[in-house]
Amino acid sequence: MNATPTAATANIGVVGLAVMGSNLARNLASREGNTVAVYNRTWAKTETLITEHPEAGFVASKTIEEFVASLEKPRAALIMVQAGAGTDAVIDELSALFEEGDIIIDGGNALFTDTIRREKAAREKGLNFVGTGISGGEEGALNGPSIMPGGSAEAYEKLGPIFASIAAVAEGEPCVTHVGTDGAGHFVKMIHNGIEYADMQLIAEAYDLIRQGTGAAPAEIADIFAEWNKGELESYLIEITAEVLRQTDAETGKPLVDVILDQAGSKGTGVWTVQNALDLGIPVSGIAEAVFARALSSKPAQRAAASSLPGPAEPWTVDDKATFVEDVRRALYASKIVAYSQGFDAIIAGAEKYGWDIKKGEIAKIWRGGCIIRAQFLNRITDAYNDDPELVALLTAPYFRAAIEGAQESWRQVVAHAAKAGIPSPAFSSSLAYYDGIRAPRLPAALVQGQRDFFGAHTYQRVDKEGTFHTLWSGDRTEIESAGSSH
Amino acid sequence: MNATPTAATANIGVVGLAVMGSNLARNLASREGNTVAVYNRTWAKTETLITEHPEAGFVASKTIEEFVASLEKPRAALIMVQAGAGTDAVIDELSALFEEGDIIIDGGNALFTDTIRREKAAREKGLNFVGTGISGGEEGALNGPSIMPGGSAEAYEKLGPIFASIAAVAEGEPCVTHVGTDGAGHFVKMIHNGIEYADMQLIAEAYDLIRQGTGAAPAEIADIFAEWNKGELESYLIEITAEVLRQTDAETGKPLVDVILDQAGSKGTGVWTVQNALDLGIPVSGIAEAVFARALSSKPAQRAAASSLPGPAEPWTVDDKATFVEDVRRALYASKIVAYSQGFDAIIAGAEKYGWDIKKGEIAKIWRGGCIIRAQFLNRITDAYNDDPELVALLTAPYFRAAIEGAQESWRQVVAHAAKAGIPSPAFSSSLAYYDGIRAPRLPAALVQGQRDFFGAHTYQRVDKEGTFHTLWSGDRTEIESAGSSH
Repeated sequence: MNATPTAATANIGVVGLAVMGSNLARNLASREGNTVAVYNRTWAKTETLITEHPEAGFVASKTIEEFVASLEKPRAALIMVQAGAGTDAVIDELSALFEEGDIIIDGGNALFTDTIRREKAAREKGLNFVGTGISGGEEGALNGPSIMPGGSAEAYEKLGPIFASIAAVAEGEPCVTHVGTDGAGHFVKMIHNGIEYADMQLIAEAYDLIRQGTGAAPAEIADIFAEWNKGELESYLIEITAEVLRQTDAETGKPLVDVILDQAGSKGTGVWTVQNALDLGIPVSGIAEAVFARALSSKPAQRAAASSLPGPAEPWTVDDKATFVEDVRRALYASKIVAYSQGFDAIIAGAEKYGWDIKKGEIAKIWRGGCIIRAQFLNRITDAYNDDPELVALLTAPYFRAAIEGAQESWRQVVAHAAKAGIPSPAFSSSLAYYDGIRAPRLPAALVQGQRDFFGAHTYQRVDKEGTFHTLWSGDRTEIESAGSSH
Repeated sequence: MNATPTAATANIGVVGLAVMGSNLARNLASREGNTVAVYNRTWAKTETLITEHPEAGFVASKTIEEFVASLEKPRAALIMVQAGAGTDAVIDELSALFEEGDIIIDGGNALFTDTIRREKAAREKGLNFVGTGISGGEEGALNGPSIMPGGSAEAYEKLGPIFASIAAVAEGEPCVTHVGTDGAGHFVKMIHNGIEYADMQLIAEAYDLIRQGTGAAPAEIADIFAEWNKGELESYLIEITAEVLRQTDAETGKPLVDVILDQAGSKGTGVWTVQNALDLGIPVSGIAEAVFARALSSKPAQRAAASSLPGPAEPWTVDDKATFVEDVRRALYASKIVAYSQGFDAIIAGAEKYGWDIKKGEIAKIWRGGCIIRAQFLNRITDAYNDDPELVALLTAPYFRAAIEGAQESWRQVVAHAAKAGIPSPAFSSSLAYYDGIRAPRLPAALVQGQRDFFGAHTYQRVDKEGTFHTLWSGDRTEIESAGSSH
C-alpha cells in the first residue's frame, strides 16, 4: 500500500472503485503475478478500499497522473465507471497521458456501437481500446466472472493471461476468450443479457403456471426447482429461483415473493438486444416478450384500469399435478432452447455485419461459469457448434432436436392450458409459435406478400420460377413481371 | 404547361416525380384553387408527366431555381424523393433558395428523429419544415390519402387547406389533422405502419388457421373474409384479403396465394416502431411478433434446416367448422383491439417524451379513410378518447371491454388449438398473453425482482410499505432498507 507511487510497478490498474471496480481490483490483486494500481475520482473511496484490504497490496494514487505513472508499460487500465459520459471522460483523461501501445479497457455495460467508436478513436492515437463484457455481478467480479473482451489481438496478448487469472473456471477452463475485434465483446455481452431476460421470464412463467395450476406454495415450488436443478435444466438461475422462493419474509411471515412488488425493473441491455436484433433482421421473440413483460409489469395505472377485464368463465383445475409439473418442466426446457437459438442467431448476424470472427462454441463455453446464465446446457451448445460450425439454427442440432421432440407435446399442452386458464405466458407461447413457424412447410407470409402487392405494388416472388411479379390489382388482374424487388 | 416559368404562379410545388410524387402532384392539380409546380432532378420524368397529363396545368421547371421562382410566397414545396441522403440533398438545395416563412415539406417515410433534426435546422434559418406522413400507397396519393403533418402551427395555416383539398374523405371529413410539432407527423405515421404490420399478421394467422383447420380452399376463405367485412371487422385490409384469396393464377390455375413465395418483405417502418416503443418502454408485442414473423419467413436456409423438426403426433381436426371459423373471427377482433391499444400507448408515450399535444381521437379519425388500416372500427377509438381523453389503456374503454368479453372464450380456444395443432400463431397468442398480463392481479414479475436482487443486488419494493429493499442473500438473509433504486 503506497499512496504516492513513484515507480511503475503495477501490471494492471483499475479506475472507478464502486462495488464492481473494487471487487475486480481485489480479485486481480489476489492472483499471483498481479500488482494492481487503483484510482478513483474521489480519494475517500480509494482510502476505504486500501484500508479495508491491506492484503491486496494496492498501488493507490490520488491523481490520474500518478496512477498512470504507477503502471508498467505497456500500460493497461480497466475503467469501471458509469457507462456513457462518465466513461468518455475517463477515456479522454487516460488518452492524454497514455503512450503508443498502452491499453484502455472499458469493463462497463457499454453499447457496442459506442465501443466501436471509442476503439477507432483510440486506434487513431496509437492506443489500444478493449471493450469487455464482464458478467457475474458483484459476486462474480470478486470471485470469478465470465469475461468477454473485444479489441485487438495485440491487446489480448497482454490481457489474456490477466483476464484468465481472475475469470471463473468451468471444467478446468477459464471463462474468457478473445471474442473478436472492437465492439465484439460488448456485443456478445449484450446478447448474453438478452438471453438472461428470456431465461428469467420463462422461469417466472413456469413458477406462475405451477402455482396457479396446482395451488402449491412458494416453498413447495422451491423444492420443485431444486429438483429440476439436478437435471437438464441445471443452471444458476434455476438454483437461485429455488432460493428466492424458499425465502420467508421476517416481518410478515409470508413468502418473500408475495411481499415483493410485482413490477420488474431493467437496466436497458434487454432493450438494446431487441433493438439491435431488429436491425439485424433476427427474430428474438423470446427476448422481446421478456422485455415487454417487464415493461407491462411496471405500468401500475394501466394494470389497475385493466384489472377488472374478464378472464375465463370456468375456474382452472389441473387433474394430475405431477404430470402438469413435468409438462411445465419440459415446456421450460424447449422454450429455453428457442431463446438460446435466437440469441445465437443474433450473434451470427452481428458477427457477419460487423466483421467479427466469433467462435460460437467458445462463447457458449465461457458462459458456463461466472455469469448469470451459466448452465450445464451450454456444453451442448458448444458441442453443437463444434460438430457443425456452420449450423444454421441451433435448435436443428441433433441434441436439441431430440430434446424438443421429447418436450413438444408437453409444451403444447402447457401453452394451451395457459391460454384457456388465463395465465399470461408470453415467452412460453411466443417460443412455441416461433418453433412452429420455423418448421412450417408453408407460412401465411404468402398472403402478406399478396396484400402488400395489392395495396403498395410491392411485388412478390413465385414458388415455381425466378423473377419478381406484380398483379395488376386495379386493372385487369393479370400478372406482369416487374423490374422491382419484392422487399 | 409551361417549361420555363417566369412568374410565381403556383401555390404548391412537388419535387420528385416518381409514382408517389406524380400521383400527389396530379391529385393536387385536380383540386380547385391549386396551381402545381413540378420539378424532378432528371427532366425526362417531368416531361413524361406534363405530356401525359396536360389537364393538370403543371408549372414545370428544368432547374431548381426556376422551380423556386415559380412558387408564390410563402413558398411551399413537397419533397417526394428517397428517404435519407436524397431528402437531405433536396432540403439543402431548397434551403439555399427559400426565404423566411417558406415551407419545406417532406412527404416521405422519414424517421421522425430525422424530421426533428431537420425541422430544427430549418427553423434556425427562418424556414418552416413540415414532415408529413402520407398513407394510402399510389392509389391513395392519386385519389385521396390520409395525411399526418407535423411542423409548426404557422405552416399548417397555409398547408391545412391544401392538404384537406387532396385528402381522403371519411364520413364527410377530410383525413388530415395537424398532428403536432416537428416530428409528430412522421412519428404517428410510423406507428400507423406498425399497427398495419400487426393487422396483416393477424389476418394471415386467421387465414392459416381456417385453412389448416377446416381444409377450406382459398376461394372459400375469400367468401369468409368478404362476409367478415360486413361486420365489426369491416376494413380495407379484410376487403383486400378476400380479393387476394379469390385470385387464381392464370398460369397454373392454382390459387395465387399458393404460388406466391411465402417470404414476406418489409420496408423498415415496422422495425422502427418496435425499436422506438422499446425506447419508450411500451410493450408493442403484437407489432413485434408481426415484424419477427416476416423476418422468420425470409430465412429460407433456416426454414429448410428446421423443416423436419417434429410437430404434433396427432393430426388436427376441427369438429364444427362453422363454430371454429366464428371463433377465429372473434380471436382476430380481440387481438386487433390489443394491437391498436398497444399502438396508441406508443403514441401517448411518444407525445409525452417529445412534447407533442396529440389528440388521439383525431388520429383515429384521420385513419378512417385513405390509409391502409382504414376501418369502421376506428370510429370506436375516436369515441373512446372523446369520452375519456385521459384513458390509460384503449382496451379498458367500455366498448372494447365489452367486445373482448364477447370474444375472449373463442380467443382462448383458438390460441389453444393453434398450440396443440402446431399452427404458428405468434400474434394471436402474444396478444392474448398481453391481455392476460395487463389484467393479472399479480404477475410473476415479483419473482424476477427477487432473482435480480439475488444476483445483482438490484433491490426491490414491497407491496406493504414504501421504500427500497435488499435481502442479504449471501449473508444472513435478513432484509435491509437500501438507498438505491429498484430499477
